[in-house]
Amino acid sequence: MMHKQLAIGIDIGGTNTVFGIVDENGNCLAQNAIKTSDYPQVSEFVAVVSKEVNVLIDSFDYTEIIGIGIGAPNGNYYTGTIDFAPNLKWEGVVYLVDLFKKHFNLPVYLTNDANAAAIGERIYGAAKGIDDFMMVTLGTGLGSGFVVNGNLVYGHDGFAGELGHTIVEKNGRTCGCGRKGCLETYASASGIVITSKEFLENSNNSLLSGLNEITSKSIADAAHKGDQLALDIFDYTAEKLGFSLANTVAISSPKLIVLFGGLAQSGDLIINPTKKYMEDYLLNIYQNKVEILPSKLKASDAAILGASALAWQNS
Amino acid sequence: MMHKQLAIGIDIGGTNTVFGIVDENGNCLAQNAIKTSDYPQVSEFVAVVSKEVNVLIDSFDYTEIIGIGIGAPNGNYYTGTIDFAPNLKWEGVVYLVDLFKKHFNLPVYLTNDANAAAIGERIYGAAKGIDDFMMVTLGTGLGSGFVVNGNLVYGHDGFAGELGHTIVEKNGRTCGCGRKGCLETYASASGIVITSKEFLENSNNSLLSGLNEITSKSIADAAHKGDQLALDIFDYTAEKLGFSLANTVAISSPKLIVLFGGLAQSGDLIINPTKKYMEDYLLNIYQNKVEILPSKLKASDAAILGASALAWQNS
Repeated sequence: MMHKQLAIGIDIGGTNTVFGIVDENGNCLAQNAIKTSDYPQVSEFVAVVSKEVNVLIDSFDYTEIIGIGIGAPNGNYYTGTIDFAPNLKWEGVVYLVDLFKKHFNLPVYLTNDANAAAIGERIYGAAKGIDDFMMVTLGTGLGSGFVVNGNLVYGHDGFAGELGHTIVEKNGRTCGCGRKGCLETYASASGIVITSKEFLENSNNSLLSGLNEITSKSIADAAHKGDQLALDIFDYTAEKLGFSLANTVAISSPKLIVLFGGLAQSGDLIINPTKKYMEDYLLNIYQNKVEILPSKLKASDAAILGASALAWQNS
Repeated sequence: MMHKQLAIGIDIGGTNTVFGIVDENGNCLAQNAIKTSDYPQVSEFVAVVSKEVNVLIDSFDYTEIIGIGIGAPNGNYYTGTIDFAPNLKWEGVVYLVDLFKKHFNLPVYLTNDANAAAIGERIYGAAKGIDDFMMVTLGTGLGSGFVVNGNLVYGHDGFAGELGHTIVEKNGRTCGCGRKGCLETYASASGIVITSKEFLENSNNSLLSGLNEITSKSIADAAHKGDQLALDIFDYTAEKLGFSLANTVAISSPKLIVLFGGLAQSGDLIINPTKKYMEDYLLNIYQNKVEILPSKLKASDAAILGASALAWQNS
């Protein structure tokens, strides 16, 4: 039997933590999950995840595990800590890498989820072989990861890449960060729902008017059926995102922008108008050069793949 | 006599081209200049500069020239070309590195002036030993250079770092690039003069009212004397710059921002309010971490030093 190298990927979310074993081609060979919120003590959480990861490892013969990659909100690559993550129960600064190293005699790498997604996309997905690109995750918030000269941009403190907290509207919507007008209050799965509510106040002629609960998916469904209000909502969202992307392209001049997450699953509904607005706002030297593509990672495995890619990237 | 390594720096501007010989400590040992605009033919320009550079080289005995670094508007590091520079007489794409290589059997490197300034600051100046910083040149326009993980960010096409052409006011001032609201129409030596004219329309109670010609220096002089309008003009400028810097910090998380150029020579008049506004607009995780410093390069030599640093950087 062939000796095979594999990596562990662990993605920590506010609700669930998923983890799995990934080969170098981006196949997730085995995975499992636990509820993050069941573990108010981080040491207990790490012990349980480690035990379950070992169960997965033991199901493979003749393998070599090259390392563990972890994606987590506010995960810091340099310090190996999760710092003041608002959506996790563990308070303050959590020394996550050190905790995992008590259970594994392996290299352990941590970064935030959007950076992990960027590396995942570069190792296995839409950005394979591309040295300068940006990853934008349009989930509950807006995360981003920048790859420059083939390396992730961590900044001097490990906190680079918060495109979601660039201000796109001075005195705009209130953001969870305490400031106003952050891009993620407009361009995210939650941002587009806020926009839909604002737009519905002045319209009752939409498929969305009758719904009990509006999600980015229901807006996309209505838009697919030609609902004008839903299309206008996408257009409004795309203008904010396209504007911010144009300003960001002027800084890092990427070849590619990869979109991922709930809102990105709307596909062309969000990508086409975003591309149009981005081009409108771009300085001429950047026009018609930057691709915007949806993630090529299988959505169900993407978080694990992204985290595991950290281990391959450093191997 | 000691055998000494030296580098050539050439800075090409719309009006003048300056060039000199620089040692590894950033001492400009000899320099000269010609008028760029006297040479509508780029090949003739290169021949004259090369001849004059050789005169400088010949004045030193027992030296080794390690290479030639060139800073020029729209200079592209990857292609060695100057592409469509609006302020130069040479049209289209100019193969500048190839032209210089006909005259010198040496490595020749080209980038734009702001990138050259960034490298100069890292090799000899305020950013010595700092791996993550940004350079902002506040001259006629606003140029910028980003250093990430110790390397200049060129982007996929060599055109990264156009902070001056990020849009800070939708439908704002008309920019030379044909768009509206670019940062450089507000935060530059020319931008602050436009602001002064706007402000003077509603005021005659200022030291600036009586002047025939207003420059960034005369605004600074008035502000130093406590002129309130001049101080308000700096405050307005600093708000735009601080806002843009805060949005940029969220992307690259630099440890330091170095300001250079005509407007930066106002020192604390521009740095203090810019720092204040930047902090106001920063996401909490970045607050009180980012220094803003003036360039530490001697203004008269800075352009040559920056260009020469390209050669040291690659040696």
